[in-house]
Amino acid sequence: MLISELAGRSQTPLATVKFYLREGVLMPGRSTSATRAEYGDEHVRRVLIIRALIDRVGLSIHQCKEVFAAIDNPHPSLFETLGHAIAALPPKPAPLEDTPRARAVIEALGQIYEPRYPAVTQLELALRDAEDAGMPLDPERLAVYGQHMREIARYELSRAPSEQDDVIEYSVLGTALGEPILAALRRLAHQDLAARAYGSPPSALPGER
Amino acid sequence: MLISELAGRSQTPLATVKFYLREGVLMPGRSTSATRAEYGDEHVRRVLIIRALIDRVGLSIHQCKEVFAAIDNPHPSLFETLGHAIAALPPKPAPLEDTPRARAVIEALGQIYEPRYPAVTQLELALRDAEDAGMPLDPERLAVYGQHMREIARYELSRAPSEQDDVIEYSVLGTALGEPILAALRRLAHQDLAARAYGSPPSALPGER
Repeated sequence: MLISELAGRSQTPLATVKFYLREGVLMPGRSTSATRAEYGDEHVRRVLIIRALIDRVGLSIHQCKEVFAAIDNPHPSLFETLGHAIAALPPKPAPLEDTPRARAVIEALGQIYEPRYPAVTQLELALRDAEDAGMPLDPERLAVYGQHMREIARYELSRAPSEQDDVIEYSVLGTALGEPILAALRRLAHQDLAARAYGSPPSALPGER
Repeated sequence: MLISELAGRSQTPLATVKFYLREGVLMPGRSTSATRAEYGDEHVRRVLIIRALIDRVGLSIHQCKEVFAAIDNPHPSLFETLGHAIAALPPKPAPLEDTPRARAVIEALGQIYEPRYPAVTQLELALRDAEDAGMPLDPERLAVYGQHMREIARYELSRAPSEQDDVIEYSVLGTALGEPILAALRRLAHQDLAARAYGSPPSALPGER
């Protein structure tokens, strides 16, 4: 298809598609003449992913580039490629000298981890915040959290596609798009359980304001 | 204690403590003279919570006011008070006309819910984003997510304090501070499972860049 059709099929302004091409996050089409190129379904899909990452997840075009650099120039190891792609997602906390709280939690869970992975810093900061707020998390609670998140992760991995390129896309999008879904489901579960525990009708909730 | 000691014990600049008082998020102390007031441990705790909400969770002072207005002026029903306090936390999406995806999910989970609760909109938007990115969530996946988040919520409720004021504080802080912890744990579980599935040493991860 021509670039105009690519724009149409991805419901994206032509100027935006051209911008993605110039920035190198959208791979070039197959040149058919000096001024024309042919695009395929993989381009439509890529445009949709770029828009999801920028418009929904809130990535900058620069962060998007990092994600696709990892996807388009894979390391020999899928594990490394995945690590680089997911490390490009927010939040990207500045590395800490040490992450004792996070290390203790991950080791108690018996998990393999790379200490310099951004999620380790993210966990350390979040645990410190909870302490600072006077609400530290005890080992039992962390074990419960860790176990359920691991079950979720295990399910997600069991459903991963078999093609390497697709695995990376699946992991990056699944990580980024799954977080708000899980957070919303937790809040909704609280509401349901609170309604049952405190016996109030759900007709009296915030929406009425 | 005097306000200077309150500032010292909460490790917060005196000017900031005075700002919280002026804004009404910190309750006034007990007046002992025209220019002096006496503060207690509950004030230290409140300052720490305000700072957690502003500095860590990213609430504005205005959003903070909404949270504490719900806590300090409780409705007769604990359920309603909780709903108002948690609805003041981000994200606060603009209400949608209809939320068919979210409703289908919550109803499949058999949960009580108030359709105008912000988390319903949050879920609807996140599900729509996943669809737009070409990665819709099927009912099986949503059932797995819903079940684990419900188990987490159930554990959290089982550990809630017995005093009404404390329940609200616990719920607001637990909701806000727990989300980044759960997100980090999910990413770390992915790393562990990927290391096992794809057999790569964790020494080759992003931190090396």
